[in-house]
Order: sequence, then structure tokens, then C-alpha cells
Amino acid sequence: MMPNFNIDHDRHNRLGFSEVIFGASKSVEDIVAILNDHIAHNKNALVTKLQASQLAVLQEKFSRGIADPASGIFMLEEVPDNDTREVAIVSAGTSDIHVVNEAYYTLKFMGTGADRISDVGVAGIHRLMNRLDELKTFKVLIIVAGFEGALPSVVGGLLPQPIIAVPSDVGYGVATGGQVALNAMLASCANGITVVNINNGYGAAVAATRILNQLKR
Amino acid sequence: MMPNFNIDHDRHNRLGFSEVIFGASKSVEDIVAILNDHIAHNKNALVTKLQASQLAVLQEKFSRGIADPASGIFMLEEVPDNDTREVAIVSAGTSDIHVVNEAYYTLKFMGTGADRISDVGVAGIHRLMNRLDELKTFKVLIIVAGFEGALPSVVGGLLPQPIIAVPSDVGYGVATGGQVALNAMLASCANGITVVNINNGYGAAVAATRILNQLKR
Amino acid sequence: MMPNFNIDHDRHNRLGFSEVIFGASKSVEDIVAILNDHIAHNKNALVTKLQASQLAVLQEKFSRGIADPASGIFMLEEVPDNDTREVAIVSAGTSDIHVVNEAYYTLKFMGTGADRISDVGVAGIHRLMNRLDELKTFKVLIIVAGFEGALPSVVGGLLPQPIIAVPSDVGYGVATGGQVALNAMLASCANGITVVNINNGYGAAVAATRILNQLKR
Amino acid sequence: MMPNFNIDHDRHNRLGFSEVIFGASKSVEDIVAILNDHIAHNKNALVTKLQASQLAVLQEKFSRGIADPASGIFMLEEVPDNDTREVAIVSAGTSDIHVVNEAYYTLKFMGTGADRISDVGVAGIHRLMNRLDELKTFKVLIIVAGFEGALPSVVGGLLPQPIIAVPSDVGYGVATGGQVALNAMLASCANGITVVNINNGYGAAVAATRILNQLKR
Amino acid sequence: MMPNFNIDHDRHNRLGFSEVIFGASKSVEDIVAILNDHIAHNKNALVTKLQASQLAVLQEKFSRGIADPASGIFMLEEVPDNDTREVAIVSAGTSDIHVVNEAYYTLKFMGTGADRISDVGVAGIHRLMNRLDELKTFKVLIIVAGFEGALPSVVGGLLPQPIIAVPSDVGYGVATGGQVALNAMLASCANGITVVNINNGYGAAVAATRILNQLKR
Amino acid sequence: MMPNFNIDHDRHNRLGFSEVIFGASKSVEDIVAILNDHIAHNKNALVTKLQASQLAVLQEKFSRGIADPASGIFMLEEVPDNDTREVAIVSAGTSDIHVVNEAYYTLKFMGTGADRISDVGVAGIHRLMNRLDELKTFKVLIIVAGFEGALPSVVGGLLPQPIIAVPSDVGYGVATGGQVALNAMLASCANGITVVNINNGYGAAVAATRILNQLKR
Amino acid sequence: MMPNFNIDHDRHNRLGFSEVIFGASKSVEDIVAILNDHIAHNKNALVTKLQASQLAVLQEKFSRGIADPASGIFMLEEVPDNDTREVAIVSAGTSDIHVVNEAYYTLKFMGTGADRISDVGVAGIHRLMNRLDELKTFKVLIIVAGFEGALPSVVGGLLPQPIIAVPSDVGYGVATGGQVALNAMLASCANGITVVNINNGYGAAVAATRILNQLKR
Amino acid sequence: MMPNFNIDHDRHNRLGFSEVIFGASKSVEDIVAILNDHIAHNKNALVTKLQASQLAVLQEKFSRGIADPASGIFMLEEVPDNDTREVAIVSAGTSDIHVVNEAYYTLKFMGTGADRISDVGVAGIHRLMNRLDELKTFKVLIIVAGFEGALPSVVGGLLPQPIIAVPSDVGYGVATGGQVALNAMLASCANGITVVNINNGYGAAVAATRILNQLKR
Repeated sequence: MMPNFNIDHDRHNRLGFSEVIFGASKSVEDIVAILNDHIAHNKNALVTKLQASQLAVLQEKFSRGIADPASGIFMLEEVPDNDTREVAIVSAGTSDIHVVNEAYYTLKFMGTGADRISDVGVAGIHRLMNRLDELKTFKVLIIVAGFEGALPSVVGGLLPQPIIAVPSDVGYGVATGGQVALNAMLASCANGITVVNINNGYGAAVAATRILNQLKR
Repeated sequence: MMPNFNIDHDRHNRLGFSEVIFGASKSVEDIVAILNDHIAHNKNALVTKLQASQLAVLQEKFSRGIADPASGIFMLEEVPDNDTREVAIVSAGTSDIHVVNEAYYTLKFMGTGADRISDVGVAGIHRLMNRLDELKTFKVLIIVAGFEGALPSVVGGLLPQPIIAVPSDVGYGVATGGQVALNAMLASCANGITVVNINNGYGAAVAATRILNQLKR
Repeated sequence: MMPNFNIDHDRHNRLGFSEVIFGASKSVEDIVAILNDHIAHNKNALVTKLQASQLAVLQEKFSRGIADPASGIFMLEEVPDNDTREVAIVSAGTSDIHVVNEAYYTLKFMGTGADRISDVGVAGIHRLMNRLDELKTFKVLIIVAGFEGALPSVVGGLLPQPIIAVPSDVGYGVATGGQVALNAMLASCANGITVVNINNGYGAAVAATRILNQLKR
Repeated sequence: MMPNFNIDHDRHNRLGFSEVIFGASKSVEDIVAILNDHIAHNKNALVTKLQASQLAVLQEKFSRGIADPASGIFMLEEVPDNDTREVAIVSAGTSDIHVVNEAYYTLKFMGTGADRISDVGVAGIHRLMNRLDELKTFKVLIIVAGFEGALPSVVGGLLPQPIIAVPSDVGYGVATGGQVALNAMLASCANGITVVNINNGYGAAVAATRILNQLKR
Repeated sequence: MMPNFNIDHDRHNRLGFSEVIFGASKSVEDIVAILNDHIAHNKNALVTKLQASQLAVLQEKFSRGIADPASGIFMLEEVPDNDTREVAIVSAGTSDIHVVNEAYYTLKFMGTGADRISDVGVAGIHRLMNRLDELKTFKVLIIVAGFEGALPSVVGGLLPQPIIAVPSDVGYGVATGGQVALNAMLASCANGITVVNINNGYGAAVAATRILNQLKR
Repeated sequence: MMPNFNIDHDRHNRLGFSEVIFGASKSVEDIVAILNDHIAHNKNALVTKLQASQLAVLQEKFSRGIADPASGIFMLEEVPDNDTREVAIVSAGTSDIHVVNEAYYTLKFMGTGADRISDVGVAGIHRLMNRLDELKTFKVLIIVAGFEGALPSVVGGLLPQPIIAVPSDVGYGVATGGQVALNAMLASCANGITVVNINNGYGAAVAATRILNQLKR
Repeated sequence: MMPNFNIDHDRHNRLGFSEVIFGASKSVEDIVAILNDHIAHNKNALVTKLQASQLAVLQEKFSRGIADPASGIFMLEEVPDNDTREVAIVSAGTSDIHVVNEAYYTLKFMGTGADRISDVGVAGIHRLMNRLDELKTFKVLIIVAGFEGALPSVVGGLLPQPIIAVPSDVGYGVATGGQVALNAMLASCANGITVVNINNGYGAAVAATRILNQLKR
Repeated sequence: MMPNFNIDHDRHNRLGFSEVIFGASKSVEDIVAILNDHIAHNKNALVTKLQASQLAVLQEKFSRGIADPASGIFMLEEVPDNDTREVAIVSAGTSDIHVVNEAYYTLKFMGTGADRISDVGVAGIHRLMNRLDELKTFKVLIIVAGFEGALPSVVGGLLPQPIIAVPSDVGYGVATGGQVALNAMLASCANGITVVNINNGYGAAVAATRILNQLKR
């Protein structure tokens, strides 16, 4: 059978960002073929939501690539750091690292300046209060939270920027899978918060990129 | 048919509080009969979750009774005010009044001192911060919230008392019916918060009474 | 009892937009009191999700106000039109008008230029294709859809702007209440789409305002 | 214990297609016995939804059989190709291959001409538009989609044939398991689309066969 | 505001059937305007899922129209009967009449021959068995069922035609709203049954029309 | 720590059947201790829902015991066969064997005569019709079904005995886990069918025993 | 249109009880026609789940009939009392009367002796303990409960008879609609309890009749 | 990257209990680092919900620590026993041990006197009745139950203390995951019972500590 993929090489012209490869349900053979197609077109590529076994194959085949095991993300080639304070990725602690890093590396892949701020959960709210001045310097805020997902509600009442909330699947009992955090963010009584799918750090990064591209126009 | 109710007149001895009548799914004729039975036993009585039409009949039949239309609660006889700062019923605003008042009148019926504090939602968190010293003076905190139900998470990280969270059914879209607030409270990353059923202001008041009775033992 | 509301008059300074009143679960007496408080502070006000009976009272009490029965919205005073092409509110047809108008009047209240484009459903996709050039001229797109909620997926693959998707509760059977449209938008394979609660035209408008305010900084 | 199966050998006469064996929850011993019973009756057989370990046993025991690991399907004997353009199996990309192939091999087993067209997702809708003329030449369309399941809505507004939509379980977060795609297809505002169970490529193929048999009558 | 509808007058050429108006969430003024637009174009029209109050207005305004209160359907002009045995609409009894009639009048509007067979529920299966010979004479079967939705499973094992199952919302307890019947039809162990949304008699009729149009090509 | 179990040795006197041990969430050490306690009291014992690894330990420790790997059941000592036609356990095929056998061995443990009849699914209803006379000879019918769970509806309309329906977890897509079969059985339009939990072959056997014990009184 | 009902007059011979009419979703005209058909065949009839307006028409048309407004049940002709202690219908209090009475009148219609025992909820368990001796004298127990549905678990551990548990829809918050009581009964750790649909007093009565008929055989 | 944790060392002063480490979704390297930070601050520490592999590493690295494999809990240093009868942790049997022990070791870590009472399920209610006098001597009751979660309802009607109900995930079919037990506890008709998340023995222990701290003030 001929290769059954068809890269949308026009996407960057049309939308301002390149196609990214969703790795979770593809065979590693297909992913390797797609990456080779990018190399042949002289383009960088990003693959998301890889399992450890898939990641290991990619690291072996493409030794210059960047791999982040926490998020299961793989980038074909290193991208130079951008030190502009464009996007802050805010979270409560170490447990949401898989989502935080997916957003971080996606932004990095797109050449955007991004910082991770991860010790500001609502169960000890003074930690958030202490960093408000720093947070005010970013253009877009991505807020990641699992369990009851309350962090975007509190941030949304304190800061004026565009806010993209990302529910994570961290939690147990009723919080298993992230649906509670998702619903809490959608139902937030703080105003003008937008939400993406559970664990969708990638989507949050692209949404931030859409805003930043509009700022640069 | 003979009367099909059987008041548990021993409950106060056994548990430290009297039986209360759940009005929602009883015929008004049955409720009137039950109240007359209480009068015959020379006891006060409380009926909860009454519809407007049921409440109107009770007000007409028992003219000395206290009725609260917001919560659909009816008390056979006025109880003297208790000014002790025992329980604070904390909420975000005017929309949760049906739940706040159900807790308030149940505590009043049981002779407990209760205050309502209702302008402290997380979307403008300075309002809560301004009242922390006042809140520290109560022995038990009942926290009512609808929508994303984040208020108990924030309060639970700031104050040491026993906290009983009550989800309300205020909200729309995913928040319709109160399930989001309920789950957010159960999944709270603040520690040691307990939860009761949606709109169960009555249950929160009895739970507070169990604690206060233990304090008085 | 003293008035149990506490307007967050500092919100515009802090966040760049004023507090808006959620009407659905407040008594009309409370709403009237809140509006009079705004008049006393010489400020305009917006009330959302009013029922017909509440709206009628407000129209009678505040005769200069603007009422939109389709969305149940009420604005204390007319705001001059802004003809800038800032936000397009895109929908499939006449059935989502309650959500479209809530977004439209909220944007109007905030002084933003907004247009409604409502005949572009995916069941006849040429209608959308014919208007792509027009849609490219807006800075932010709000996309409203009920039933299977597919419109944001198609628009998101064609246009580069920030996109805020709003699920509406229009539909029957599995689509009752809007949960299917919500989930379809969250699961969209188009990239960087953000989502707000079902029927939350208001929240979409505030999210657009956060972006526009950032553009103006 | 005697064999506890009872093949419905009359099914082809009654319904126009043979009984197929659901492999997922049978022991491999039972499947082998059933296949031997088919061989004894001189009949071909198809087994669906096999796990890798079951498939390996069947390949070893019945070396002339055809196995497709992607879909977990096993056919006792090769069937000659039918090059008639009867059914197109349309999907967005490589991730839905397990469902696409289940439909493909079931149609092959029934002697029907089937083609797979798998690069036409709605996130880049020009890819679908470019192949409309080709799609018009088929008699029945099977459309497979995961995530938000929007593809059948778009195709259903463009093409007149019978359309059988198959939700796949590809996706994460709210899309986990395929329920969102299923509901989106059921709620589609495109007209006259029918739906089968999640991942039920087999059922879609039989439904197409029922239509094709009627066309041949 | 200008009329916010945009009839897809090309649909019949493209798909083989005309656009039908979904009445449930439109204002009656909008529906009247749309119907007048059809009269101006000299075309018949069908409106579905109307409430009694909407239907009354339409009957008064368009006195030659055909109204069916059971299904809330309205047709602008009578269509001559077609006595061909093309589609049988099969149901268990009188309770599903709102769904049966929606399918029946939609087929009638499209000029298709349709019969209603409604006394064949599985709780007394001899009633179905007695009518198998009659059912064999139709080209397509629409099967409507509420409660546990078992009828399509039984019919699907007995008859070879294309089968479109329609879950109805008749039932109580777990069956409230029709989700159980829907899921039972999707999970049916009978082969090649396709399903449409709950109460979607209209969609079943269009799906049957797609098949019949293919038969006539 | 002392043993934390407390066998209810009085249960047979009180209820007419002995306590049975739920194995799934106990450690194998606890199960061995409980079985030794039964041996010390000179009593037979039954353990249900054991995993393969637990079962292996029990077979080694108690070599006279009877183990059924399909259902994960273990009986301390063989019980003599009872050839009375008391209970028929009816199912569609080989996939539900784990539930059928749990019921079968539980009845055997209780000394009841039980037969398994497992080739009578509704997708080929003649197979059921052929065995009605045989089924009429039993006193109680246990009907096991997965997928859409339609078998009890059909049997319930044909036979007069007490019917206990057991949903099994066999199925995929919407049928995953057995909830569809459960709800279909609860919503059955056949009359007087009772239902137990998903996969609860044990509970169905005890319910049958309660009826049979009443017959013997 | 000819009458679209087809009474199953053979059901009593086949199953041991007559067909009963489900009133909820039938027009009152259809119900009257069905009842006249019974009168013409000289048979008694029972209609269940009638709304108040339907019941009023039936009472006027058939003045000798027995109507129970609490359960919405109507019986064409009085049936003589049967004083045998066959079935006890046990419930917690006055709120479940609609379910209790549906079971009661169905048993009465079938000539079975039935008693209602309704003051034995688990929140004051001494009330149940006081009546155990009385409960032991019945042949079958029907247990009705709403809220958390715990009553069958307690009764099932104390009494040996066949037990049919009926969840009622009484409750609020998470208990709304009766799903919690249903699931609690299905998950009961008491043994051999069977369950019917929410509010299905009728089904419980028929299930009891199947058992009693078996006892009489 | 610098360590991304930030221990809330002030929590004991603010709330009366120390921060506890949620282990489930942290890497074992992060947990080791956090524990070393505690040792450096000369403080004891508790980690919850550890998997077996994480626990093994901690036992090796911190050989003086206390590990409980049943609950996946790890305490850095032994705490002296407190023999005061402060909290009783009541459960039905051996299956809920993972939840019982999480509560037990958390209370031990906080210096509270706690006893485990685990043979009192409602399926044999005499076992509970026999221990009522003992239970009356505790100040707070934690009640753990899986399956239908009925135990708190019965205890709540018999004893006057504060009651914290903890649903466990023990059960199968509808009870899988603990949601049924959770909802049953929330819907309990016994009064003043509070509830925490499924399996949240830790939270119940902290809630008890909040009450005990209030008793000691």
C-alpha cells in the first residue's frame, strides 16, 4: 500500500503555523515515514502524545531530535531560544508537568517565548499573590490545573490578559480523567476565560500563537 | 387509610437534634397532619424544600409559623436569636440564597448562632481576604457555591476550622443542576473539606450541629 | 436585611472591563437595586440571561434601557455604534440567535465593533466558502453552533485568527442541552480553537475583549 | 462439555450474507473449533476484533488465512478482488486504520468492491473538495471519523448517496472512547446520515451490503 | 435587521431532496417568512418538530397546509399519494406515533410510498411473525422503538433489507429520553442495522430516500 | 493484627443460604485464612470473582477444591449433582460463559439442579423458538445477555416463570462494560422481569434460591 | 385511520396474567377505545402512569372504575379483596406512595393479597426491627426506596424471602430521578436481591405474580 | 531545571496540620527530593497513593520510614502511638483496607488516636448493633464503604457524633470505581453526614483533625 498520509504543507501560509503530528494512535513506522518526508522538504516537525516505546524509536532514528519523556513530545530539530516574555504557562505543581511541557515545547517549536511558573496552587494562595507582578508582564496566560481546576478562576479575577485554561487529568475518584477540572473551567465565574480539551497543552499553545500572530500583524 | 407517618420522637435523645420534615414530595394534607401531631406533642417543627403553593397553605393554617420563600422552609414557631458566633454560612452572592437560608433557618431552629456572609466570591478575591479575621472567629464554616464551586478550595487553604461545603444548583450549561460544583468540592486540593448533597443546606446545618454538640459535651 | 450585593467597582481598572450582572437566579428586586446602585455611581450596566418576566419589569422601571428578548439581555443605556471590524460572530442560522445576540450586545456594551454573520452552516458549505474573504477582515472570530457543533472545526482549518467557539443548546435527542456541540468543539482536530461554556455568548465576548485590549496595549 | 456454539448456516439464505464470528470475548480454542466447523462445511469464515495473541494462533493453525493486524480481523480463505466501485470507505488519516480495515475486509469477504480514501479530514477541507468527483462514482459511502466526528456532516451536505457514518475511538480527553464522534454523527445537521456503533466497521460493511443487495434485486 | 435565513434552493439538485425547516427553535415569525419565501419560489415546504402553538399559527396563516399534531409537522401543500410499497415504518404500538408520523409525512413530502405497521412489539412476538411476508415486500424498513429498543434486533435477524432504526423517547426511569433505546440499537447483535438520532423520524425518511434514489439511478 | 474477618455463620439459619466470599478485592492470604476457618468449622465454601493468579494459589493450597477459570470461581469441596430441572441458565453464545458459569457453580454449591442452554440469541430467533418446550419445564429462568440485552424481553413475552435477567459486560463501543444491556433489561416492555447487577451470576443464583426455598416451604 | 392497537388477549393463557395498558404516552382517546374493547370482551382492565387530566376523563367515562390519583392508576372494575398474606410492599414513608400504590393496585387487579408497610426507613432502624416477625409471614417482599435506596440491603440481610427492590424517583441533588437508588440496589452487598426499573411498581407486582403462580402450580 | 516544588512550610501554623505529599502522579525522583527537603528542615513527612514501584524505592532510600503497601502510604519517621479514643474508622470488611489504612496512617502521622473497626457491614446488621456502645466512646466517626455505600446511613441514624463518610472503589458492574457509594452517601436520608472524595481516606483524616483541633482549642 502507498503511504496513506498527505501533509498539509500549505498550512503555515494559510494559518500561520505548521501541521503537527498526533502520535498517539499512529504506528511508529508511519511516524518515521512522515518525519522523513519533512526532512526531504527541509522542514522541522513536532510529534505529540507519543508513548515511551514510540519515543525510543524516534530518538534512535533521528539522533539530533529533542525528546521530552514527561509529555511524550518529539521535535526533529532544536529551535533557538526566544527570551521575549510572550506566554506564561502557569500550574500548581509537579504533577501537571506532562501538560505544561506539551505547551512549552509546542511554543518553542513555533519560535515563541514561553516561561513555566509552577508553584502557585490555590490551596496556598499566597504563593500566587507573590507572583502577580511577574505574571502581568506576559501577553498571554496558559493556566494548567487538575483536580478541581480552580486556578483559572482565581487568576481570571486578578489579571487582564487573554487566558487559556487547560484541564489536566491529574486526580482520583471523581477527578479521574480530568472531566471535573474541565467542567469547572467552563463554568468559571471569572470572566472571559477560554478552555481547551483535557491535557491539550498543544492546543493551548496554538491558540496562544493565533493571538500572538494577531498582535504582530 | 390511617395516617402513614410515624414521627421518630426519640431522635433528639439519640442523636441530639429533632426529626425534620422533608416537604418536597409529600402532599400538603400529610404535612398539615404531621405538624398538628407536633403541636399535640407540644413540639416545634421544621419543614424543608416546600413549593410556593405548599408554603401558602401552611402559612394560612399555622399563622404563627415562620416562612422563608427563598428556601421553601417553614418553622412552626419562632425560636429566640442566639448571638454566639458558632457557624458562618459563607457564599459568593445573592444567587445562592435558597441554600444559604435553608442552612440558616435549620441552625436557628436548633438554637445555634449563625451568620450569613455573602459577598466573597473568588472572581474578586480581595473581598474574601478582607474578611478573614472575622471568619476566624467562628467555630464551623459552611461554604455555599454554585458554578465551578471554587470557594471552599480557597477558604480551605486559609482557615483551620471544620469546613462543610455545599454545592448549589446555580449555573447554566455544564453547571446546570450543581454537579460541577459538587465534584469540584469533592476533588478539592485543599485538605479536609467535607461535602454534602447539592442544595443540602439542611444537611450542612445538621453536620455543623453534630460538631457543635461534640464541642459542648 | 441590608443589601447583600457588593459591586466590584474596581474591576475595570484591574481587568479592563466592568462587572456584568448574571440575572438568571436573582430576584428582580435585587436586580433593580443593583441597577439603581449603578445609576447612583453614574455607570452603565448590563444584565444577562433574564427571563421574559424579569425583562418586562426592567423595561418598565428603566425606560431608556435596551432590551433584547431573544437573548434575555438588558443594558441600562444605549452605547454609540463602533463600526470597526473587530469581532465577527459567526453562526449557522436563525436558531442560535439567543447566543449570538448575547455576544453581540456584550461587545456593544464594551464599545467593541461586532458583526453578525449567520447563514454559513456546514450542511451547505459553499455558503461559508463564499464569505471567507469577508471573514478574514476581522481580528477575532466567535463561532456559535448547536447540534454537532462542526462549524468551528471547518473555520479553524481555513482562517488564522483567534477563534472562540460557543456551543449552543439547540438540538434534540443526543444533542439536547448542547453537550455534544461542546465536546465536539473541545475535541476538534482543527488547531488552536478555544471554547467557552454552553450558551455563554457573554463569556466569548469578554474573551474577545481580553484579546482586543491586548492588541491595543 | 459439548461444543457450545451453533452456527446459523441458514443466515445467507435468509439475509443475504453469512454469519461472522465476533472474536473479542471468545477463547481461542472455541474460535479454532468454529473455524474447523466452517472448513468441514466447506465454507469461508471471517473473525473480527481479535487480539494480537489470538491472531497469532489462528495464523499458525490456518496458514492459508488472511490476517490484518491493524483491525484484528482474520479470514479463512482469500477472496478474489472485485474492482467495481461499489463502496468508498472515507477517513481523515492514518489513525482510523483499524476501523477502515475492518470495513474493508468485511466487504472483501462478501465479494463487494471497496476502495479506501483516507486523507480528507475537515481541518484542511480542500483535500476533500479535490476528490468530490471521484467520490460521486461510488454507490454507498462509509465515512469513518474520530475526535469530533465532523467529516460525515460535511460529506452529507455535498453528496447524494446513502451514507453510513462510523465513529472511531481515536481521540483523547473528552473524545476518549469515541462517544463524542458518535454523538456528533447522530446530531448531524446534514440530512439522512445513518450511524453504527463506535469502531463498528464490520456493521457498516453489512449495512452497505444490505443496500447493495437491494440494488441487485 | 434583514431576514437572517438563506434557503439552500440548490439542495435538491445536489442531494436529491429539498431543504426541510427545523421548527423547534425558530420564532413563528421566522417560519412564516421562510414559508412565504417558498411560496414566492413556487415550491412546497415541510416544517418539523413544531410546538402546538406554532402549529396553530401556521394552520391559520396557510389554510391549505397539512398539519399533523402528533408529530408537530406541517406541509405547505398536499402531495398526491404514492401507493408503491417502498418504505415500511414499523413500530410496537400507539406510543411512538410522534416519530412514526414524522417519518411518514417526510416520505410523503418526498413523493415516496410509505406504510405504517404498528402492532408488532417483541413482548408478544407472534404479532411480528404473522406479518413477515408482508414486510418482505418493502424495499427499506424504518423500525421505531422506545423503552429497551429491541425490535430492530429481532427484525434484523429475520429480514434482509436495509434497516434504519429510530429510537423514540417513550419510556420512564432509565428509559427516559430515549438513550437506552438508542444504545441498544447501536449495540445490536443483529447485523448491518443503522441508527439515527432519538425521535429523528425525519432523518430516517431522508436516509431511506437516499437509498431509494440510488435504486432509481 | 488479628484476623479482620468475621464469618456470618448464622446466615444459613437466617436466610436459607450460606455466606459466599467475594474474592476480587481481597488478598489471597486473607482468602486462604477464611477458607481454613471454614474447614475448621467443617463447612464447604465458595469464592467468587477470583483473578487467575489468586485461583492458582487456591488450587495449590486446597487440592480437592473445584476451580472454574472462565468465571474465576472456587469451591472448597465437590457437591453431588442434582438432576432436578429447577433453574435454566439461558444465554446467547460462548461469550457470556464467565457469567453463566458463576451462576451455575453457585447453584451447584447450594445443591440446586441447574442446566445451561447457550445458543439462543435473538439475531436468529428460530433457535429460541425450537427450545421453548424444554424451557417450560424449569421452575426459574436466569437469562444472561450482553450487547443490547434483548433476550430477556423476548423470553419474557413467551414464558410464564420467574425470570432473573443478568447483563454481561460483553460488547464494545457503547456496550462496553454492560451498562446498555443492564438498562435495556430494566426498561424491558416484557412484564415482570427482574434484574441484577452486571456480571452478577452469583446474585442471580441466590435470587433463584430464595424463590426455590419458598417453593419448598 | 383504523384503531392502531391490537390487544394480546392470549397473554393470560401464555403468561398467567393479563396485558396492562401503559397510559403515559397514549392519547386519552386511544385509552378510552382500548377500555371499550375490554368491556366488549367482558374483561377487566388496568391502566398505569396516567396524568391527572387523563385520569379525570376516564373517571367520567367509566364511572364504576377505581382511580388512584397518587399513582395515576385506573382499574375498570373493582376486584374483591384477598386477605391472604402473599406480598408485603415495604417503604420508608409517605413520599414513595406513588410507587407503593402502583404495585398495590396491580396486585389487587391480579387477585393477589397485598399489604402496605410504610414506616420503616433505615434512618431509624428500630422501626424496621420491630416489624420483622410480621414481615416473615409474607411470601414475597417488594421493597420501595428513593434517596440512597438502602432499605433493601438491610432487609435482604435479615429475611429469607424473594425480594424485589423498586427504586423510586424521590430525592434531590444527586438523587434526582432515582438513578442513585437504582444503582445502590443493583450494587447491594446483601445477597439475591432483584431489581426493577425506577418507579416500576407495576413490574414488581408482575414479578411477584410470576413467583406466586409458580408456588401455586 | 531547578527543583519545581515549593513546600508550604507555614501550613501547620495556618491550618493546624502539615502539608502531605500526593505521590500518585509525581516522579519518584521528585518525591525523594521533597523528602530530603523535609529531612533538611528536620520535619516528618507523609506521602500518599504511591504505587508499589515508587514505594519500593522510598523504602530503600529511607530505611527508617514506615510503609503500608495496602494503602500505598509512606511516612518518613515512626510516630508514637496515641491511645486516646478520638477517631473510629469503621468499615464492612477486608476489601476496603486500602482506604481504611490511608485514614489510619494519616491520623497516626498527625498524632491522633485512631482505631479500626472492620466487621460491621449492613448485610448482617447484628454485627454493627453489637458494637454500638463501643462506637459511642469515640469523638469522630469515619465510615468507609464500597458497593452500595449503605453503612453511613445506618450508623447516622444510630449515633450522634460527627460522621465523615468515605466511599471506596470496591465493587463491580454499576459499582465500579465507587461512584454509586459516593452518591448513596450524598443522598443519605440519615441527617448531617458529610462526605469526601472516593478513596480519600487522607481527606477524611484531615477533616477529623480539623474537628479535633477545634475541640482542643
